[in-house]
Amino acid sequence: MARAIITLTTDFGPSDHYAGTMKGVILGICPGAQIVDISHEVTPYEIAEGAFVIAQAYRYFPKKTVHVVVVDPGVGTTRRPILLEAAGQYFVAPDNGVLSMIFAQEKHKVRVITNERYFRKPVSQTFHGRDIFAPVGAHLAKGAAPASVGKLIDNYLRSSFGKPERTGKHFWTGAILKIDRFGNLVTNFRMSDFPGLEERAFELVVGAQSVKRLARSYGECAIGELFLIVGSSGYLEISANQASAAKMLGCGAGAPVELRI
Amino acid sequence: MARAIITLTTDFGPSDHYAGTMKGVILGICPGAQIVDISHEVTPYEIAEGAFVIAQAYRYFPKKTVHVVVVDPGVGTTRRPILLEAAGQYFVAPDNGVLSMIFAQEKHKVRVITNERYFRKPVSQTFHGRDIFAPVGAHLAKGAAPASVGKLIDNYLRSSFGKPERTGKHFWTGAILKIDRFGNLVTNFRMSDFPGLEERAFELVVGAQSVKRLARSYGECAIGELFLIVGSSGYLEISANQASAAKMLGCGAGAPVELRI
Amino acid sequence: MARAIITLTTDFGPSDHYAGTMKGVILGICPGAQIVDISHEVTPYEIAEGAFVIAQAYRYFPKKTVHVVVVDPGVGTTRRPILLEAAGQYFVAPDNGVLSMIFAQEKHKVRVITNERYFRKPVSQTFHGRDIFAPVGAHLAKGAAPASVGKLIDNYLRSSFGKPERTGKHFWTGAILKIDRFGNLVTNFRMSDFPGLEERAFELVVGAQSVKRLARSYGECAIGELFLIVGSSGYLEISANQASAAKMLGCGAGAPVELRI
Repeated sequence: MARAIITLTTDFGPSDHYAGTMKGVILGICPGAQIVDISHEVTPYEIAEGAFVIAQAYRYFPKKTVHVVVVDPGVGTTRRPILLEAAGQYFVAPDNGVLSMIFAQEKHKVRVITNERYFRKPVSQTFHGRDIFAPVGAHLAKGAAPASVGKLIDNYLRSSFGKPERTGKHFWTGAILKIDRFGNLVTNFRMSDFPGLEERAFELVVGAQSVKRLARSYGECAIGELFLIVGSSGYLEISANQASAAKMLGCGAGAPVELRI
Repeated sequence: MARAIITLTTDFGPSDHYAGTMKGVILGICPGAQIVDISHEVTPYEIAEGAFVIAQAYRYFPKKTVHVVVVDPGVGTTRRPILLEAAGQYFVAPDNGVLSMIFAQEKHKVRVITNERYFRKPVSQTFHGRDIFAPVGAHLAKGAAPASVGKLIDNYLRSSFGKPERTGKHFWTGAILKIDRFGNLVTNFRMSDFPGLEERAFELVVGAQSVKRLARSYGECAIGELFLIVGSSGYLEISANQASAAKMLGCGAGAPVELRI
Repeated sequence: MARAIITLTTDFGPSDHYAGTMKGVILGICPGAQIVDISHEVTPYEIAEGAFVIAQAYRYFPKKTVHVVVVDPGVGTTRRPILLEAAGQYFVAPDNGVLSMIFAQEKHKVRVITNERYFRKPVSQTFHGRDIFAPVGAHLAKGAAPASVGKLIDNYLRSSFGKPERTGKHFWTGAILKIDRFGNLVTNFRMSDFPGLEERAFELVVGAQSVKRLARSYGECAIGELFLIVGSSGYLEISANQASAAKMLGCGAGAPVELRI
């Protein structure tokens, strides 16, 4: 009853034919595969945002799932395609840091993808999603051994956008990882890295504003009030009940945030 | 050959990982399920709009389909999760009125969802789509008995946004339920509630404008002309041929409409 | 293991129930079908754009795939529904030119769809996607013979938006077919129609600007530099490395482009 699962996370958007094309290639190689769109609306070229999206979603998928991640500003250059094995799943992506948040969270192995037998030929200079990442992912889903894809490497790119820095005894500087559709500001402060935080006095400073209240649910706050909440992915978020915290604070992804305990 | 079908209707948008996460949870419980996106672009928190979307789509799905509907401004409060059985199908949603238009159209039974064995643990305060609605839907799709989910109730929330009110012998006040992508204004006047209307003189008044012509197809009107048409869902719509009636009238969802016969 | 594949290309957008409704109809007729969204965000009524999207995607799908294409400003008029057989695949669409770029590229047969046994009844005047195109596509996917759908015709509409015109010994006038999400301007100059072009001096003129450099990959150009590249679909594109060429040139789909060799 189970079928091979392949997920797609890209910055291709919803109106072009690129994502559909990748699906055709996948179904040609691995008929009957279950293709799941995670998102095609990562902001174009925003590797950090793509890294966040796939890092939030993968853990909810079954073992053996193949995740194809294509946020790839360097397509056609010498950046390498890689295969990550982690959490019993596979990730196929460019070696540009887009898998960094998974490297930071899971025991893992990384291979450079070199076996051209799995590629679609000729390989274009502009669309490796179609010619390399989708077909390699489909072959893995169909049962190809990871080792047949290429050799293990350890010099793959690890980016640090997942981690706040300590800047003083009581201070940490972090960043907004993502604004979600509801205007919640997802920070890179992972609650599990600050055990006991909820019992101490602390504040999160964004621009000229400081937010101090830690709520357990949206509904316990007044409509339009700013508050902190541990989001569904375990990060501290700045939210407002039925309103956009992002609009109220006028800030976007990448903005710095300071935690003061 | 048939596989369990689970549809998703949410306000999660296309760029976040939330919908993808729900799909992972579903496939972990019910491998091989056919997951169908109805829409993830219900306007955030707009229960009436979500109610309209699911009420228009469900009737075209096979028996046993499980519809998961998550437009849920009250997540984390005491609002209950419910299971609706109607038309041989299942609907899993918060008890906030989002299923009201189906209550109005179908014989039905409603249960409160209390069986935590079907939940993903721990249940977060902010993402019941992932922790309650998706897994309960997946268990139903896999064959769980509706009665195992929780007890029948009759005090679930019924909202009336589906119904115009009679305000005089020849007058009814209704509302715009939705503006579709083409700029058609879908009203809540169901043609079948006004038998013989097409043979009588009548008009629909929106703001300062009155529309009198009832067309059978878009193409029979001049490009840019405003007219009425019975839309594909059986409601009276204000349309314009290859133009946006919404832009021409400058009005949006929720705007009042008066029918004069 | 293989399942019937049905793709959808429409201008229905992501927030209405229309695409979801078509999927319900398909699954009712052909349970277990693999439904693939190519795009639901063709610009409303833009037949040329829909023609481009499906013409770029179909070749990557397996034989027997059924493509349902609904960009249909003439719904409810006398324009006919047609079935195209080409490249071992099927295409179900209105006879309004939306399949023209496939007519131009493949040996093909066209039938007018007249067999009402395959329709959903009653057939509405406003939503043939649900009542004609989806069910006919589902019956074909389930194994119905193409000849059972209707008779062969040769007076179907062929539009010429796929072809540049020669306007002088060294001059051709073409057009921008589509702006993609990355701001690349896809022209209708097919590289294979101009053999040896890359070895000669040539320029592409758009508005007041001329672009001369032909690059092999995005990465070899400076960030923000305008250049030409043979896109993944074989057409000449005007691009900029990690920037939107469309914004830099201020032009959109349909804009004229001159090639000077």
